Parts: sequence; C-alpha cells; structure tokens
Amino acid sequence: PRRFDPAEHSHRRRNALTGQWVLVSPHRAKRPWQGQQEAADDTVLPAHDPHCYLCAGNTRVSGEVNPPYTGTFVFTNDHAALMPEVPAAAPQAGSDPLFQAEAARGTSRVICFSPDHARTLPELPLPAIRGVIDTWAAQSEELGARYPWVQVFENKGAIMGCSQPHPHGQIWACDHLPNEAATEDRHQSEHLAAHGRALLLDYAEREAAAGERVVVQTAHWLAVVPWWATWPFETLLLPRFAVQRLPQLTPAQRDDLAEALRRLTSRYDNLFRCSFPYSMGWHGAPFDGTAGPHWQLHAHFYPPLLRSATVRKFMVGFEMLAEAQRDLTPEQAAAQLRAVSDVHYRCTSP
Amino acid sequence: PRRFDPAEHSHRRRNALTGQWVLVSPHRAKRPWQGQQEAADDTVLPAHDPHCYLCAGNTRVSGEVNPPYTGTFVFTNDHAALMPEVPAAAPQAGSDPLFQAEAARGTSRVICFSPDHARTLPELPLPAIRGVIDTWAAQSEELGARYPWVQVFENKGAIMGCSQPHPHGQIWACDHLPNEAATEDRHQSEHLAAHGRALLLDYAEREAAAGERVVVQTAHWLAVVPWWATWPFETLLLPRFAVQRLPQLTPAQRDDLAEALRRLTSRYDNLFRCSFPYSMGWHGAPFDGTAGPHWQLHAHFYPPLLRSATVRKFMVGFEMLAEAQRDLTPEQAAAQLRAVSDVHYRCTSP
Ligand SMILES: O=P(O)(O)O[C@H]1O[C@H](CO)[C@@H](O)[C@H](O)[C@H]1O
Ligand SMILES: O=P(O)(O)O[C@H]1O[C@H](CO)[C@@H](O)[C@H](O)[C@H]1O
Repeated sequence: PRRFDPAEHSHRRRNALTGQWVLVSPHRAKRPWQGQQEAADDTVLPAHDPHCYLCAGNTRVSGEVNPPYTGTFVFTNDHAALMPEVPAAAPQAGSDPLFQAEAARGTSRVICFSPDHARTLPELPLPAIRGVIDTWAAQSEELGARYPWVQVFENKGAIMGCSQPHPHGQIWACDHLPNEAATEDRHQSEHLAAHGRALLLDYAEREAAAGERVVVQTAHWLAVVPWWATWPFETLLLPRFAVQRLPQLTPAQRDDLAEALRRLTSRYDNLFRCSFPYSMGWHGAPFDGTAGPHWQLHAHFYPPLLRSATVRKFMVGFEMLAEAQRDLTPEQAAAQLRAVSDVHYRCTSP
Repeated sequence: PRRFDPAEHSHRRRNALTGQWVLVSPHRAKRPWQGQQEAADDTVLPAHDPHCYLCAGNTRVSGEVNPPYTGTFVFTNDHAALMPEVPAAAPQAGSDPLFQAEAARGTSRVICFSPDHARTLPELPLPAIRGVIDTWAAQSEELGARYPWVQVFENKGAIMGCSQPHPHGQIWACDHLPNEAATEDRHQSEHLAAHGRALLLDYAEREAAAGERVVVQTAHWLAVVPWWATWPFETLLLPRFAVQRLPQLTPAQRDDLAEALRRLTSRYDNLFRCSFPYSMGWHGAPFDGTAGPHWQLHAHFYPPLLRSATVRKFMVGFEMLAEAQRDLTPEQAAAQLRAVSDVHYRCTSP
C-alpha cells in the first residue's frame, strides 16, 4: 500500500484565516497547455511619459494638474467606486432576508509610488520604498479616523485590471467591514479564544521554524507561500512581532519592511524574468474600536501566473462553483521562488 | 435632502445563498477604460477540425481514439485534477489547527456537447440541447452513487481558461463537500428552519412577481440577474417547482429547460454579438443522504464581460482583498439582456 505523499496525491488544505479549503492537485502540473497566452510584461518604459495621467506635472482626465511631486503622490480617484455622501437606504430595505441592502459610504484614492514612470516597487531605491510604506501608514491613520476599514492595495499589470502602467496603488476606505475583513476577524478571534495567542503570530513562528514555505526572511518580517495558498505563487507577508496596523510600525520595522518588500518582489520578477503581475494588499485591525489583540497586520500577494510569463492560472469553473484548485504544492512554489536571486534582474547595482 | 437611489448611489447587497455582500457602484459605469482589451470571440469554426482532440473519430493526447459519436460524448479527463485512488493522509495531518489537510478523491470527466465543432449550446437544435441535459442528469446519477458532490460545469471561451474551442463541459466528482456547496447548504438550511420554505423556491416566486431582474421565463424555469449578482451579467437559472437534483427532472421539465437554456445563452451571445464567455454550473443537493428539502437545484452563470465583447470586469485588488464590486445594477443588466432578441444572431431559422 502506497503512503500518502502531498507532492503527488490530490488533497485539500484548510485556510486558517478564512476557514475555506483549497484542492491541491500536484500531479496536474504536467498537463500540456494549449489555451490562452498572456502578453509578457517586460517592456522598458520611459522615466516620464507626457501622456500619462499619473506622471508629475501632467494633466489628468478630470482636468486637474499633478504637482511636480518627488516622493509619493496621493489624490482622490476621479472615478471612485465609493462616495462619502450617500443618503440612507429606506428602512424597509433591510427587513426582507432575501433582498437585503444597505448604503455604502467611503472614498477611493490613488497613490503614485514615485514620479518615475519606469520603476516598479522592487526597482525603486530603498528610501523610496520606505516612503511608500510611510504613505500607506499615514493614509491608513488619516482615513481610519473616519472609516472602520481602510483597504491599501496594488493591482499590478494589465492582466490584473491595471489600466495605468505608472507604478501606483490604491486606498479604498469604507464605512462597513467588507466580507474578507469580517471573515478574517472571526477566525483570528476564535483562534485567540481557543489557543491564547494571535493566530498569525503562532503561524509566523511555525513557518519560520519549518522553513519549507519561506520565501523571504528578514530581522522583523517573513514572507511565505502559505500552507493554504490558492494562487500558484501566492505569498503572505507577516510581521514576526505583535502589531495590529500599519501606523504602529516603528522606523526600524519600516526600514526592514522596505527590504523585505524589495526582496520578495525582486524574486517575483526574477521567476519568469518579467514584471510579475499581482494584486497585493494589507489587512490590519479594523479602525472601529472593537479590534482586540487577535488581529495581526499582514499583506497578501495574489499573482495569477502559473508556468511562465505568458501562462496564467484560471480560477474558473470548478473554482467559482465549488472550490479553489491549485496545480503545484505551496512547498514547490516556495522552492522555486527561493531558487532565484533576490536582486532584481534589471538592477545592475544591488 | 436627496433620497437613496440604488441606480445612482453606492450600496451593498447581501447574497442570501452565501451570506456574502457585494458592493454596487452604479455611478462608476461611466469611467473611461484604457486597460487591457480581450480578443472578441466571433470566429466561425468548421463543423469538423481534424486537429481537434474532441471531434468524433480523432485521436486524443492520450492516444485514445474518439468513437464516431453522434450525440454527446463523455470520457475521463486525460489530466484529471481528482483521482479515485489516494492513500489516506497521516492521522496527525488533521490535528494541527493551522496546518489542516485531508486526502481528496474523485474523478473528472469531459462532456462533448455534440460532434459539431462549430456549434455552441444556443446554436444546437433543441433535441441536442435536451441531450446535453439528459447527459448531465445521467452523469450526476451515476457519479452521485459513489461521490457526495458532483459538479457539472462549462468553461466557455479562452478568457475563461477554456483550452478547447470544441463545445464541451466538465463533470468533477469528489468525496467531500466543496466550500461553495457547504456554504449554500448552510444558508438554505437556515432559511427553511426560519421561514418554513425552501430559500430558492421563495426567491423564484418573488423574482417572477417583481419582474425587474427577470431575463428568461418559461413554463417551468426562470433566469434572473440575481439581486446579489457580482459579475456584470451574472444569472441564476431557477426551477419554478420543488426539485433537488438534475436526475429528478421529468421529460417535460427537461424539454422546457432546453428552451430556457437556448433563450438565455442566445441573449448572452446577442448582447455583444459574440460567443459570450462564461463559467456556468449546476448546484443540486449533495448525494450524501443528508440533504433535506431545503435544497433547490439551480445553475449559476458567471460571465466576465462588462461593456463590450472586448472589455471585461476584473475581480482584482479590492475584490480579492475586501469584497466583490460591480459597476452597474443587476436591474440595469437584466434590462440590457431583455432588450436583445432571444433568437441567436447567427441563426437564420428559429
Ligand atoms: O478545462 P481545463 O483545461 O481542465 O482547465 C480549466 O478548468 C479548470 C476547472 O475549472 C481549472 O482548474 C483550470 O484552471 C482551467 O484552466
Ligand atoms: O484600477 P481601477 O481602474 O480603478 O480598477 C481596477 O481595480 C478595481 C479595484 O480592485 C476593480 O474594481 C476594477 O475592476 C479594476 O479594473
């Protein structure tokens, strides 16, 4: 009788943060691919593009003119999905269990990482990455004073719906706890109640000790392909100390985070020698006054590529209707990311 | 003071089947799109392609030869994500709450809709669509005798990860209840307990009466853009009678379903005059002996297109990290689908 081998046999793993399961089918990585190919993103852009809405000094769609900024630059999205002023929905709207609705208020901002049109996060000098972190923290603090949830994120690459090549992220704040936030809140809270420690502190310690899913490790930070990763090269970036939100990070923890981010995103770009697409974002304790010590700050990276710069994973059919499915184990993905350099392939000096 | 208007103001709606919320930002549909464009799928294919792995009489990658089939044709996937024989995982695998795993067993089959390489579902004669329904039902019955969950689905279009243009669907069966099945089971069960009726029977009745989200209505079936739709033109196909699973459908209900499917998928193709991509699939009561009358059979259609045959909705960033967001209301989407003919644009005779 054969023994169960996670690198060969189909199995499911449970995401401790969300309670959802993922189907792992490691034997499936061998199937040939004849489907859609993506355009590989390896173009070199100019440092300034006169037609770009985000470059310093240029005019946006709205007619506003960007200042001659030198660090990060934040402005309110000209087509925000959330608006600060929305009349309250009629009270009867919430009374029918099959047709529940509520007004949603908030704001949506764009954050240009630097005036340089050509440089993505790993290609920026360390102090500039530190500047992005400081802006994420300051924005979270400012918007957190008004909204319970502040979602800092970046959509990178056309394949991830990013319509502007100028390196930038977004910050959406809203007056409700979104699905993912509510789910992670519940699971972290249950873990603290059952085990007396924050889930993600426990988890970071165990992953650092195990090592096989670690991608980047610095003095204060740890990036792993989590046990429960759904996207092929998904990572979870974790502090190795107790902290609930971005604004609480000390200068030393921020400097070290800049280093961890640079190494992680350089490994991503080096994997297929392209500007590696992803959606990434931060989850921290809600700013609603109720968040206890069960919350640990962390960032998720969800990259779509599977085998090369042009072959992606499709989360469709079975994934949409039943559950997420992956074709290589998280351990195999972590080993691939560890096998490439953490110095960006387009960088000549480290 | 302005009054709340769901066609203008951002709001959230709750999915009664899953408990998840969706953010609706109707004012956002106006933003210009400068991002990625998809290839429009409006090619006319030959009725037989000698290089196609799915056409009758051709040889597959595995070396097997397809029979000269005339109706549907089902075979086991040559690169199945699920395998029937997997050794049990070590007992200690499940004991750690942060690293839970279990073996997953199952099978995965391909169902060619007809020998015709060129004809998608709405372009097939009605008796052939009825044949597909009969195959879905027979496969569910056969696999349901061995597995608690049988997922019938179709990935349509290259944009949905479909690597074979020959019209076909898939059937994956597994020895566990996947995430989506478990979630819908719980919410349907809670609704029956609280209200004494099956959730989706209640819902179908209310939607038929309201009318504003209805897309197709036949004697026995109803297709709506559900109140909680996340994808722009998502639909939910519902029986207007109590039924738990595909095999239970009577011949009359199947004939009528063929008609409903043809009209719905014709409206889809007519909307942007292209072969409308989607993932669709059936949810019915699990075959595990525990499923009560709270379960109602239904099909979900998840199409990615937003504004045209080449501009899709990206579920990225905020959607992956916080919650799904849509740019037009379900009522607006239903009105657009009602405004086009239910006779396929490539069909000359009805
Ligand atoms: O149709 P295929 O080639 O088996 O594969 C496609 O559908 C599967 C089930 O939805 C997904 O897991 C794959 O990512 C997708 O490419
Ligand atoms: O960056 P944009 O143009 O605002 O939009 C992009 O990110 C948003 C937030 O993740 C998504 O809702 C859109 O579908 C996507 O195209």
